[in-house]
Amino acid sequence: MLMTAEEYRESLRAYDPRVFINGKRVESVADEPLLRPGINGVGVTYDFAHQPATERLLTATQGSSGKVVNRMLHINETSQDLLTKLEAVRTVCKVSGCAQRYLSHDALNGIFQSTALTDANHGTDYHQRFMAYLHEVQDRDLTLGVAMTDAKGDRSLRPGQQENRDVYVHIKERRPDGIVIRGTKAIVTGAPYMHEFLVMPCRTHLPEDADFAVCCAVPIDAEGITIVSKPAGRPNEAAAKFSATYGQATGVVIFDDVFVPHERVFQAGEVEEAGFMTTSYATHHRHSCIGARAGFGDLLIGAGAMMIKANGLDPDRHGHIRDAMVDLITITESFYACGVAASVYCRDDPAGSVMPDPVFSNVGKLLLATKIYDMHKAAHYVSGGLIVALPGPDEDHNPETRASLEAVLGGRGDVPMERRMEISRFLEDLTVSHQAGWYSLISLHGGGSPEAMKREIWRNYPVDDNVDLVSQLIDRGVYDMGQKVSKQPGRCCAKGCEVPEPLLPGKAAE
Amino acid sequence: MLMTAEEYRESLRAYDPRVFINGKRVESVADEPLLRPGINGVGVTYDFAHQPATERLLTATQGSSGKVVNRMLHINETSQDLLTKLEAVRTVCKVSGCAQRYLSHDALNGIFQSTALTDANHGTDYHQRFMAYLHEVQDRDLTLGVAMTDAKGDRSLRPGQQENRDVYVHIKERRPDGIVIRGTKAIVTGAPYMHEFLVMPCRTHLPEDADFAVCCAVPIDAEGITIVSKPAGRPNEAAAKFSATYGQATGVVIFDDVFVPHERVFQAGEVEEAGFMTTSYATHHRHSCIGARAGFGDLLIGAGAMMIKANGLDPDRHGHIRDAMVDLITITESFYACGVAASVYCRDDPAGSVMPDPVFSNVGKLLLATKIYDMHKAAHYVSGGLIVALPGPDEDHNPETRASLEAVLGGRGDVPMERRMEISRFLEDLTVSHQAGWYSLISLHGGGSPEAMKREIWRNYPVDDNVDLVSQLIDRGVYDMGQKVSKQPGRCCAKGCEVPEPLLPGKAAE
Amino acid sequence: MLMTAEEYRESLRAYDPRVFINGKRVESVADEPLLRPGINGVGVTYDFAHQPATERLLTATQGSSGKVVNRMLHINETSQDLLTKLEAVRTVCKVSGCAQRYLSHDALNGIFQSTALTDANHGTDYHQRFMAYLHEVQDRDLTLGVAMTDAKGDRSLRPGQQENRDVYVHIKERRPDGIVIRGTKAIVTGAPYMHEFLVMPCRTHLPEDADFAVCCAVPIDAEGITIVSKPAGRPNEAAAKFSATYGQATGVVIFDDVFVPHERVFQAGEVEEAGFMTTSYATHHRHSCIGARAGFGDLLIGAGAMMIKANGLDPDRHGHIRDAMVDLITITESFYACGVAASVYCRDDPAGSVMPDPVFSNVGKLLLATKIYDMHKAAHYVSGGLIVALPGPDEDHNPETRASLEAVLGGRGDVPMERRMEISRFLEDLTVSHQAGWYSLISLHGGGSPEAMKREIWRNYPVDDNVDLVSQLIDRGVYDMGQKVSKQPGRCCAKGCEVPEPLLPGKAAE
Amino acid sequence: MLMTAEEYRESLRAYDPRVFINGKRVESVADEPLLRPGINGVGVTYDFAHQPATERLLTATQGSSGKVVNRMLHINETSQDLLTKLEAVRTVCKVSGCAQRYLSHDALNGIFQSTALTDANHGTDYHQRFMAYLHEVQDRDLTLGVAMTDAKGDRSLRPGQQENRDVYVHIKERRPDGIVIRGTKAIVTGAPYMHEFLVMPCRTHLPEDADFAVCCAVPIDAEGITIVSKPAGRPNEAAAKFSATYGQATGVVIFDDVFVPHERVFQAGEVEEAGFMTTSYATHHRHSCIGARAGFGDLLIGAGAMMIKANGLDPDRHGHIRDAMVDLITITESFYACGVAASVYCRDDPAGSVMPDPVFSNVGKLLLATKIYDMHKAAHYVSGGLIVALPGPDEDHNPETRASLEAVLGGRGDVPMERRMEISRFLEDLTVSHQAGWYSLISLHGGGSPEAMKREIWRNYPVDDNVDLVSQLIDRGVYDMGQKVSKQPGRCCAKGCEVPEPLLPGKAAE
Repeated sequence: MLMTAEEYRESLRAYDPRVFINGKRVESVADEPLLRPGINGVGVTYDFAHQPATERLLTATQGSSGKVVNRMLHINETSQDLLTKLEAVRTVCKVSGCAQRYLSHDALNGIFQSTALTDANHGTDYHQRFMAYLHEVQDRDLTLGVAMTDAKGDRSLRPGQQENRDVYVHIKERRPDGIVIRGTKAIVTGAPYMHEFLVMPCRTHLPEDADFAVCCAVPIDAEGITIVSKPAGRPNEAAAKFSATYGQATGVVIFDDVFVPHERVFQAGEVEEAGFMTTSYATHHRHSCIGARAGFGDLLIGAGAMMIKANGLDPDRHGHIRDAMVDLITITESFYACGVAASVYCRDDPAGSVMPDPVFSNVGKLLLATKIYDMHKAAHYVSGGLIVALPGPDEDHNPETRASLEAVLGGRGDVPMERRMEISRFLEDLTVSHQAGWYSLISLHGGGSPEAMKREIWRNYPVDDNVDLVSQLIDRGVYDMGQKVSKQPGRCCAKGCEVPEPLLPGKAAE
Repeated sequence: MLMTAEEYRESLRAYDPRVFINGKRVESVADEPLLRPGINGVGVTYDFAHQPATERLLTATQGSSGKVVNRMLHINETSQDLLTKLEAVRTVCKVSGCAQRYLSHDALNGIFQSTALTDANHGTDYHQRFMAYLHEVQDRDLTLGVAMTDAKGDRSLRPGQQENRDVYVHIKERRPDGIVIRGTKAIVTGAPYMHEFLVMPCRTHLPEDADFAVCCAVPIDAEGITIVSKPAGRPNEAAAKFSATYGQATGVVIFDDVFVPHERVFQAGEVEEAGFMTTSYATHHRHSCIGARAGFGDLLIGAGAMMIKANGLDPDRHGHIRDAMVDLITITESFYACGVAASVYCRDDPAGSVMPDPVFSNVGKLLLATKIYDMHKAAHYVSGGLIVALPGPDEDHNPETRASLEAVLGGRGDVPMERRMEISRFLEDLTVSHQAGWYSLISLHGGGSPEAMKREIWRNYPVDDNVDLVSQLIDRGVYDMGQKVSKQPGRCCAKGCEVPEPLLPGKAAE
Repeated sequence: MLMTAEEYRESLRAYDPRVFINGKRVESVADEPLLRPGINGVGVTYDFAHQPATERLLTATQGSSGKVVNRMLHINETSQDLLTKLEAVRTVCKVSGCAQRYLSHDALNGIFQSTALTDANHGTDYHQRFMAYLHEVQDRDLTLGVAMTDAKGDRSLRPGQQENRDVYVHIKERRPDGIVIRGTKAIVTGAPYMHEFLVMPCRTHLPEDADFAVCCAVPIDAEGITIVSKPAGRPNEAAAKFSATYGQATGVVIFDDVFVPHERVFQAGEVEEAGFMTTSYATHHRHSCIGARAGFGDLLIGAGAMMIKANGLDPDRHGHIRDAMVDLITITESFYACGVAASVYCRDDPAGSVMPDPVFSNVGKLLLATKIYDMHKAAHYVSGGLIVALPGPDEDHNPETRASLEAVLGGRGDVPMERRMEISRFLEDLTVSHQAGWYSLISLHGGGSPEAMKREIWRNYPVDDNVDLVSQLIDRGVYDMGQKVSKQPGRCCAKGCEVPEPLLPGKAAE
Repeated sequence: MLMTAEEYRESLRAYDPRVFINGKRVESVADEPLLRPGINGVGVTYDFAHQPATERLLTATQGSSGKVVNRMLHINETSQDLLTKLEAVRTVCKVSGCAQRYLSHDALNGIFQSTALTDANHGTDYHQRFMAYLHEVQDRDLTLGVAMTDAKGDRSLRPGQQENRDVYVHIKERRPDGIVIRGTKAIVTGAPYMHEFLVMPCRTHLPEDADFAVCCAVPIDAEGITIVSKPAGRPNEAAAKFSATYGQATGVVIFDDVFVPHERVFQAGEVEEAGFMTTSYATHHRHSCIGARAGFGDLLIGAGAMMIKANGLDPDRHGHIRDAMVDLITITESFYACGVAASVYCRDDPAGSVMPDPVFSNVGKLLLATKIYDMHKAAHYVSGGLIVALPGPDEDHNPETRASLEAVLGGRGDVPMERRMEISRFLEDLTVSHQAGWYSLISLHGGGSPEAMKREIWRNYPVDDNVDLVSQLIDRGVYDMGQKVSKQPGRCCAKGCEVPEPLLPGKAAE
C-alpha cells in the first residue's frame, strides 16, 4: 500500500510520541503547526509515487518480495537502481528543500548489508529478522528516523570512558525476550514525525564497549522515549516564502530504558560489524546527500535566474553575472556527477544488493559539504544587495508606505514589484535566513564531517594500483596491467547487461 | 563634547523621525526595543572614546580646528591616522559585530576631498560650507547616516531613462535658498537612529542626468523623510546570545520633496565630480570595512576556540581542527594586512588629507567579501554539528527535559553543559541565524560588489610600470628604474618622518 | 587490420612529410629520436588493442560496417561506448602521459554528426563521402591529426577582416575536382607522426567568411604542407624518467595551396554548420580530455605515494600528507565523474550516434583545466623540497661525489638512494620540467579555454526548468513536473535496456 | 666598501671551492657559464646600491658601527627598516627573478637575535664574536650562503636515531681552538658563488642530540667542503628569454670534517636556542620571501599585459581577461600586504633589533606558497595556448619556414611577430619551463613547508585574547579591554615617533 502525503499525515495519529518543542509538549504531531513544513517535506515522497511524471522515480520493485514499494524503502540491486534513487532524491528535494525520508532508505540498505555480514561471521539470525521487518515497513509504507549520532560527551574519550555512559545509547540490560536500551542520540532528522526509529551505532567500538554496538527498531512512541525537537523550517513566518511550507525538524532523542523485543534487534554487541554497519550506511547516505543538495542547487539556480531578470540584468551580456551562475551550475553538477559515477561503478555486496562506490560517494559528499558556502556566495552575488534592506511582509499592507515602496522597489518594467519582492524573499529564505545557515551546517556535518570523508577516500582508494603503474614505468618504461581489468563487471540493469569494468578494480575485487 | 553611549541614546530624543518597522510606526527611537541592539552598537564608539584602554583609538585631534573629536568623525592627515582608524574600527566591531558609525567617517572624508576638487574645477564654495558643517558635527559629536545606494529600478538603464525618476534621489527643484530633493535610497545602514543623513550620489552621471549628482546633509526628521526599517539584530530573541544585544538596522529612506538649505548642500549637479565623490568615499569605506570584518573574525576565532575546548578537542593534537582555526586566522589577518598596507602607502589629497591606497583597499575588501563564506565554513567546521539540533532557550527551563539534557549535552567534564550551550548559541547566532546570513550578504555587496572592486583594482594598478620593466628586460636584459622610485614619500606621523617610497610610484605621482 | 605499435611506426615510412624541428628538416619521422616519445605514446593505443587486459577497452565493433576497429576510430552508439572510451583514454594516458590518438576519435565523431546535419540542411552528400572515408581509416587503422586551431592573427578581428587571410585556413580556389586550401593551423597535436590531417574550422563564421568554413582530410605529405614542430617530450634527456620515453609533439602546420579532391571534403562553406561541427567535436574532445587527465592524475597519485614512503612518512599518521593525497584523488575523481555522468546522460544524435552530455563534459573539462595547477601543488606538497637541489644524472657516475651523495640522499632505510632519486626525478619530470608546464598549459587551453566552457555550460543548461520549478513553488507552494520527466531515455548498451531519464530533460528533448 | 656587480664577480676569484655540476669539476666559478645567471642575480644587489633610484633601498646605516652597508647585510632596527628591506627585496627580485642575497640578511638577523639570547641564558660570548664577524662581513660586502636544510634521511627519525649521522651536519670533534663539523646540507641556495657559508640548525634538538645544534661561518673553500650544484637558471638556452640571464643555482653541500675556529662559532650545543635561531631566521626569511615573490608577480603582470596586447585583446573590454589580471594583482598584493603589516607591527628583540611580526610573516609566506600555482594559472590564462606550439629559436633563422611563420604568427598589426615571439618565450620561460617549475616548488617548500607556517601561525596567534573577548560578551554583554592595548609601541623610524599599538598585544608583550 503506497500512501499519499495526506494518508501519511493521518497515519501519524496512530502514534502518541512524547515530543517537546520550545519547552512545550506537542499535543498532536499531525496537527502541530511548528512541524507542518517537515511533514509536508516527507509528504512529497509519498505523493510523487502516485504522479505519472515521478512514479518511475519514486517506486521500485523489491526483489525479495516482488512487490512495488516506495523507492525510499527499497533495497538497491543494480546500478540503475542507484541512478534512479539519486535522481529521485534530487527530485523530491528540489521541491521540498530536504525530503528527509531518504534516510530511511540509507539505513535499510546499510542494515541489509551488515546483518548479512554479522550472520556470516557470527552465525546469528539478524538478517532473517531484518527481512521480515523490511517487508513489514514496505507494506505499511512507513517513514523511519535514523537515531545514530550519539551525544558523545567528551570527544577525546571513548564511550566506555565517559563519566556518564548515557552520552552514547547502549544496551543496559539483556532480557530473555529482548534488550533494554538507554542513552541519548543528539541529532535525529525529522524525529517527531517518524513512525519508528532505527537505532544505529555511529562508530566502531572496542570489545569492552560491546554494549554500545546496538542496532534495533522502535516505534516513535515506545515507552521511555522523549524527543526534544526544534520546529521544522520557519513555520508561521510570513517572510518565509519557501520554508514556511517545507522544512526539517531535528531533535534530540532520549532513550530512558526502552525495551526492544528480539525480533526488532539487528545488532547487539558485535563490535567489528558495528564499524561496517556505520560505514555502509554512511556510503548510502552520502550518496543520497548528493542528490539532496543537487536539488537545493536547482532551487538556487532557478531563483538566481529569476532575480537577475527582475533586476534588469542579462547573463548573456553581463559576463560576471553569467560567471556566478556558471559557478552555481558547475558546483551542483560536479558533485552530482560523483553520485552518478558512484552508481555506475557500484560494488556488489554478498548479501545480494549493491552499494555505491565509496570513493565517488565520499568525494561527492566532500565537495557538497565544502562547496555549499560557495553556492550561497554565488546566489548572493547574483541577487544583489537589496535583501539586506528588504522590508518585511508586515510592511506590505502598511498604507503609509505601500505606494511609495511599490513605486521604487520594482526592477525591470515588466516584472511587478510584488514579484521582485517574492523572489527576493525566496532567496533570502534559502540563503540568508536561519534556514540557510541550517542548510550550510547540515551539509558540512551531516553524514559525517569532512575529515571522515577524507579518511574514507584514502582508505578505499586503490593507491597500490597506481604505485604498481609508476613502478613498472620506472623499471621498464612500459606497463602491463596483467589481470587487473576484466573482473567483476557491475550490473547496469535487470536484464543483466554489463557496464564497463569497475573503475577501481583492485578494490572492487576484494 | 564627546558623548557617552547613554548621552547618545538620550540625544536621539531631540529628533522625531517618521520610522516604520514591520508595518508599525515607531513611537520613540530611543526606547524602541527593536532598535536597541543597533543603538548599542553605535554606542560602543561613544563609550570607547572615554575608556583609558581605547581612548587613543577612538579620539583624534582635528587639524583644522585643533579640537579633540571622536575618530569616527575625524579627517585623516597621516598614515598613522589611517592605521589608528583601522584598529579603532576593528576594536569597536569586535565588540559590537558592526558599530556602523565608521560610515560617518568614510562619508566625511570622501566629501572633504570631493568638495575641494569641485571648488577647484568649478569655482564653487562647497568646501567652505562643508568645513563649517564638519566642525559642527564634530562639536555636537553626531552620528551621520550615509544615504547613497539608490533604489536603481531597471539596472540596465541610467537614472534619466528610468520610467520612475524617483528610483534615484535627485534635485527636483532649485530655489533661491536651497534645493528640494526627491527619490529613494534603498539601503541605509542604521537609518532610524542617526542624527542626520548625508545624501550622496552612488555613481558617475552623464551631463543630462546632472540633477542626480547631489550631495547634502539633512536631519533625520526633516519634513518629507520616511524611513522603512528592519529591526536591528535579533532583538528579544532569547537564543540570540550576541545579536539580541548588538545588531544593525538597515532601512529604505524615502525623500518626498525634502528641502535642503544651501549651507547643507555639498554638490548640486557637478556630474564628473560625482564619480570622484563616490570613489573616494568608497575607498575610505572599503578600508573601514576591512577593520570591521576583522573584528567579526576575532569573534569567530574566540568562539571557535571555546567550542573546540568544550567539545574535548585540542588543536595541538587534532591537525584538521587546527587547520580550520588557521584558516580563520589566515583569512582575517590577510585582508586586515591589506588595510595596514593601504594605510602605510596612502595617497596625499590636494585638500590636505590622506586617502588609503586604492589598490590595497580594494584588494582587502574583495578578499573579505569573497572569503566571509569560508570564515563561516571554518567556524562551522570547528563547532561540529550539535547546533542543528540544539534545543532553544525555552527548553532550558522545562522540568520534564532539563535534567536529561543537562546530563548528556555537556562535552568536556570541566565545561558545564550550560556553558557549552551558551557557546553553541553564540556561534549559531553569528554563523547560522539570519544575522549570519546578513553578515555574509553585507560583506559581499556592502561598499560595492566584487565586480566594482575588480574594476577599481584594474583602474588604479600601475600596470605600465611592470610593462616597462619587462620591456627593458626583454630588450636589454637589465632594468633601469630611472626616476620611478624616490618621489612622494608618504607621511607616517605628525613629526613628518618619512615612510618608504610609495609602493606604486607611477600612480602615486599622478 | 589492427596494427601494433611497431607496425604503426613502420607505416609512417610510407609518408614523406616536410617536417622541421629546431630549424632542421627531419629525414625520417619513424627514426627521428626527437619524435620517438610521441610515436611511443600513440603506439600504446595500438598495442593495447592486442593485449588481453585492455582489448575490451581499445577495440569496438563499428555499427555501420560490423567490423572490429580500434576504439580511437569508433563512432559511439551507446552510453556504454562512451564509458568504455573514457576508461580507454584514461588507461592509455596513464601509461603514456598523453596518447594523443583520441583526437582522431573526437574529430571522426564530430564530423559524423555535422556531415549528417549539413546534408539535412543543404541536400549535400558529405555524410556519404565521410562514411566511405571513415571505413577506410578504420580498415587501415590510421592515426589522424586534428588541424583545427587557426593562427588567428588579431583576436579582435574576424577572419575576413585580418590583414593576412592566411592566419585562418580557407578555401582559396574551388575546382571541378576539388578545392585548394591555404593558411596556417597553429597548434596541431602530434603533427609530424600522423598519417593524415583532418582540417576543421575552429569557430562559427559569418556568411561573408564562408570560405573559412572548410573541413577536409589530407595526407600528411600532401604537396604544399609544411610542419614546424617541437620535439616530443624530453627526448635524450637522461633526467627525464618518464618523458624521455613518452611525450607529445605539437606543431604549426602551414597549408600552402594544398589541393583536396571532393571525396575528402566534408564541409565547404556552410557557415552555420561550422559552428555545430566545432561544438560537437569540442564536446567529444572535452569528454576525452577528462579521461586523459585522469590518467595523468593516476601517475601523480602513484608517484606521490612512492615519494612519501621513500621519505619515511606515512599518510595514515601524518594528516597533512594524507590531506594532500586526498586532494589529488578528489580532484582527479571529481572531474572523471563528470565524464562518467556525461556518458550516462548522453544525447542521441539524428545521425545515429551518441554525444556526451555537453553540460557534464564542459563542467569536467573546466574542472581539469583549472585544477591541474592544484594537482601540481599537491604533488609538490608530498614530494618535499629535495627536487630543487637534486643533482642531475651526470652526477650519478662521478666518482668524486657518488659515495657521499649515496650515503646522505637516501630516505627510509629500506628504500635505496637510487630508488629515491628515480622517484624524485619521475616527479620532477611530471611536475617541474618544461613537460610539466606543458601539461598545465595544454590542460588549461586545450580543447578551448575556460571561457569557452563556461559559455557552453550556460548555453546548454536547462535554466528554464529551474525557473519553472521556483515559479511554481512561489505561486502555488507545490511543483507539478508535467511531462518533463519520462521522455527520451538514453541507451545504456546494445541490448537496448534503458538507463534513467536524462538528467536535463528539457534540453535533451531538443 | 660597497662593491659593484663586477667587483663581486671578480672577488670570487679569491676563493677556490670544490664545485661539481653535472658530474664535472668547475674550474673557475667566476667564469663558469653554467653559473653566470646566478652571479648576475646576486650582482643586482650590488649594482643597485650604487644607482640613484635604488640607493635608498639597497643601503642602510648599521647602528652598531655607524657605517653605510648593503641592506642585504643590515640588522634591522625599526619598522621602516623592515618596510625598506621588503621593498628592496621586491625590487631586486623583479629584475632578477630571485636575487638570492636576502638570505644573507635573514641569517645575520636571526643569528644576531639568537646569539644574544644564548649568551643571556648560558653566559656564553657568542654575540660578541658574531658582532665582530658581522662588521667584517659588512666591511668586505660579502655574500653569505645559508647552509641550513639538512639531508634528513628518514624523516620519521630524529638526527641521533639516523643510521648515518651525516644526514645532519653536526659537531664531530671539539678542539681547544675550534670545532670539526661533518654532514650534509641538502639544499643551499646559490652555493657555488657565495663567499662564505653560515651553517645553521634546521630544527630544535633534544639534549642527546646537542652536537647537531651548531651554527658557524666557514669560507666556501674551507678544506673538506664539496659542493654538488645544479646550473643556475637556463644558461646557454636561446629560448630562455629571462633565465639565460638571471637564475639560481641550488646545491648539496658536503662537510667532510671541516675545522672551524672558535671566533666563527655562534652556537655549539645549546639545543633550546637552536629552535629559537631556526624560528627567528625563518621569520626574517619568510618576510623576505614575500618581497621576492611579489617581484616575480611584477614580472608576470608585466608580461601578461604585453601578451594580451599582442594578441589583440583589451582587458577593459574582455572581462574574463581583466579578471585573470586582477587575480594576479590580488594574489601578489595581498601577500605583499602581509609583509607590510609584519613590518609595521614588528617585535622588539632584547638584542636591540626588530623582528617582523611572526603571524603576518607566516600568513604572507603561506599565501605565496599556495597561491604561486594560481599565479601561473592566471598568467597562462591571459597568454593563450600559442606557447605549446611555439617554434624554438633555432627555427627563427630557418629560411625555409621563416617567411611563412612571420606572416602568420603575428597578432595585432602594430606588434611585430618577433615581439610577440619574444613575449611568448618570456612567459614560457617564467611559467612553462623547468625554471617555472622550480619557482613553484621553491615557493611552496622554501623557508619551510606550509605545515610549518600553519604551526607558527597557531603558536603565535593571541587566541586567548579573543577567548577573553567572547567570554566577556557572553557573560556580561560588554567588553573591557583592561590594559591590553597601550603597551609596547613599535618604532617606525629613527626619530622615534610611535606607530600604533601592536595588533596582537598579548603576544607582543611577552
